[in-house]
Amino acid sequence: MQARPLSPAAQARISQDLLEAVRRDAPLVQCLTNFVSMNYAANVLLAMGASPAMVHAAEEAPAFARVSGAVVINIGTLSAPWLESMLSTAESAGRAGTPWVLDPVAHHATAFRRDAVRRLMDLRPAIIRGNASEIIALAGGQSAGKGVDSGNAVAQAEQSANAIAAARGTVVAVTGEVDFVTDGSRSVRIAGGSALMPRVTATGCALTATVGAFAAVSRADPYAAAVAALSCFAIAGQRAGVLAEGPGSFAWRFLDALACLEADSLTHASPLR
Amino acid sequence: MQARPLSPAAQARISQDLLEAVRRDAPLVQCLTNFVSMNYAANVLLAMGASPAMVHAAEEAPAFARVSGAVVINIGTLSAPWLESMLSTAESAGRAGTPWVLDPVAHHATAFRRDAVRRLMDLRPAIIRGNASEIIALAGGQSAGKGVDSGNAVAQAEQSANAIAAARGTVVAVTGEVDFVTDGSRSVRIAGGSALMPRVTATGCALTATVGAFAAVSRADPYAAAVAALSCFAIAGQRAGVLAEGPGSFAWRFLDALACLEADSLTHASPLR
Amino acid sequence: MQARPLSPAAQARISQDLLEAVRRDAPLVQCLTNFVSMNYAANVLLAMGASPAMVHAAEEAPAFARVSGAVVINIGTLSAPWLESMLSTAESAGRAGTPWVLDPVAHHATAFRRDAVRRLMDLRPAIIRGNASEIIALAGGQSAGKGVDSGNAVAQAEQSANAIAAARGTVVAVTGEVDFVTDGSRSVRIAGGSALMPRVTATGCALTATVGAFAAVSRADPYAAAVAALSCFAIAGQRAGVLAEGPGSFAWRFLDALACLEADSLTHASPLR
Repeated sequence: MQARPLSPAAQARISQDLLEAVRRDAPLVQCLTNFVSMNYAANVLLAMGASPAMVHAAEEAPAFARVSGAVVINIGTLSAPWLESMLSTAESAGRAGTPWVLDPVAHHATAFRRDAVRRLMDLRPAIIRGNASEIIALAGGQSAGKGVDSGNAVAQAEQSANAIAAARGTVVAVTGEVDFVTDGSRSVRIAGGSALMPRVTATGCALTATVGAFAAVSRADPYAAAVAALSCFAIAGQRAGVLAEGPGSFAWRFLDALACLEADSLTHASPLR
Repeated sequence: MQARPLSPAAQARISQDLLEAVRRDAPLVQCLTNFVSMNYAANVLLAMGASPAMVHAAEEAPAFARVSGAVVINIGTLSAPWLESMLSTAESAGRAGTPWVLDPVAHHATAFRRDAVRRLMDLRPAIIRGNASEIIALAGGQSAGKGVDSGNAVAQAEQSANAIAAARGTVVAVTGEVDFVTDGSRSVRIAGGSALMPRVTATGCALTATVGAFAAVSRADPYAAAVAALSCFAIAGQRAGVLAEGPGSFAWRFLDALACLEADSLTHASPLR
Repeated sequence: MQARPLSPAAQARISQDLLEAVRRDAPLVQCLTNFVSMNYAANVLLAMGASPAMVHAAEEAPAFARVSGAVVINIGTLSAPWLESMLSTAESAGRAGTPWVLDPVAHHATAFRRDAVRRLMDLRPAIIRGNASEIIALAGGQSAGKGVDSGNAVAQAEQSANAIAAARGTVVAVTGEVDFVTDGSRSVRIAGGSALMPRVTATGCALTATVGAFAAVSRADPYAAAVAALSCFAIAGQRAGVLAEGPGSFAWRFLDALACLEADSLTHASPLR
């Protein structure tokens, strides 16, 4: 069953409404994320208007997930105790109806990560955000990823993304030069951003956290949440990229651009079908 | 017994002397702080002229507290092993006469944090720095805090702060739009800063670390230490806020402003009684 | 046996070739580093053109070391579980022929660190990068280090560095106002940089990570790797320092300068003998 595609204008209007909702509601976004990204992801969430909460301990994270607007789980610097916390927090989020977003960082790189992601996938993330190599590997394909960097173009991962979305009933967002979002029936490509984005560490992780902020204000429609978050990054990235003289100046200009982003500039996404 | 209030000019002169002492002595400030704030707090301490040491392991943190100028304990990303280290380090600091500062981040949010803060409070911090919701909850009141953000204005927390300071023999600093510092008999409000400060993650944590730097050079007068640290943030924040175009540019401009702060600009605090 | 010294021009040419190799090969640099430095070190590696991978868990780090271009081990925020991981990862790197670099942060400060570094040294790092106090203490001397800051000038540590290099068959890089690199027979002083570098936390840690990137593309000559990395920092630091107004603006300008660094500007190092 194919969903009726929305017109680009209708999709953009939904993104605009969601951005206004994030700014108005300041949703509490609980992140169990890696040490590299924590500060930057929190600053990105604050720039968007959301309220970050980096709460990860097994003693409190599952309970906190019941009051969070959304939970973000990112395995970038995974360890055994963190994995236990992630599993019980994802389970708690699921029971409480709190949407949660998975960032399967470099899960193809080691057996430890592959197994962790397999267990997390079984707990039904609402949205998965990864680079092309990560999504290809998640669908069982052979990826060209090296460490945390993608060795594949997004276009190579579209089929994998569709397959995962359809089989798992989840939204999959593949990010790269041109992003791709699918829920298995609807999909969209989103262009924009800047070549400096992959030169700033944790940009992808911060995007996953932002997807969480939008999921918190759009619980019924995780697809719209992912599209809105990616659109914000595409436009703010483009604006910051024009002014930046390198990755150092890009990072703070990007935070400024996110904070200044007005809803009616979100006219960006081009739905595919 | 009410302490004789100092004139604003006399208070400012003390702050000026303390800032010069931080710059001259480069006190060693040991931080057991959260993962989000570590880098930023260390950079703020360096900008102030202090020497940050992020030493947290149970194997060395208590011994290190004996040679530190001050210890800063912040429960932002608390976990069970870190809590054990915090408790034994606070105890060691107490025995050695090293002043220690508590930042009870979002302690009202979970039972795990509430219990941790109860145990830490029994180890007699010299100074407590929190937002209004945190301080209200610490006094047993009903706070409106959500996650790490305050849902209360500082003015609502002044009575709680006075009560904690008097009952515990500690200094309490409540920060927000207008800060409030009390030792139970003296108190002061400090205006300044910028609306962008709460948009940069870990600004409060970095302030707590800075309070530690001043406590290290003002062991006999933790009240003066807190006032001086908050005054520096108020002035540097104001200066950075004038130039910043968003939270990204604010963060680095704030570090520059702290590093450039000359002692005689500290004329800011307005003692209340 | 003294190695024939290279002319400054020949040494510079090697550095240029290595910088081009880092940019071309984007070597995977696995870092087991401290929480303060993770984000900054990753951004520095990305600015250089390398691919950072902060992989530390005992379950995967040793296996990952077999596919990494180089491993960087930094004890800045050491804890017992991390130490176990560092030891097994260094051992795995050694068996696989992956060069690894040691940053013995403040190892003189506690028994826990001293013992950790003693065990790590036995696993034969290819390169050691430290400040003067750290290197003096590593050679068994009495250092004036306080916390993570050096209390000694680099010149005071040159003899210690030569002794360690000769006894251990390793390269030692001592950084400060004028850096010093030795492999026991060759040595060089490298001037440049900026007085703001020690005011930005984790600059030394990020340099150690960069040494790792160069070691990955120069496995046969770790001495050349260290010289090239330090030369890049000296020049980019100098350029950023000219424009910066304080430590906040220095940090991002330094990342921009590293990213813009063209190979033929590496004419900096002045070999001593």
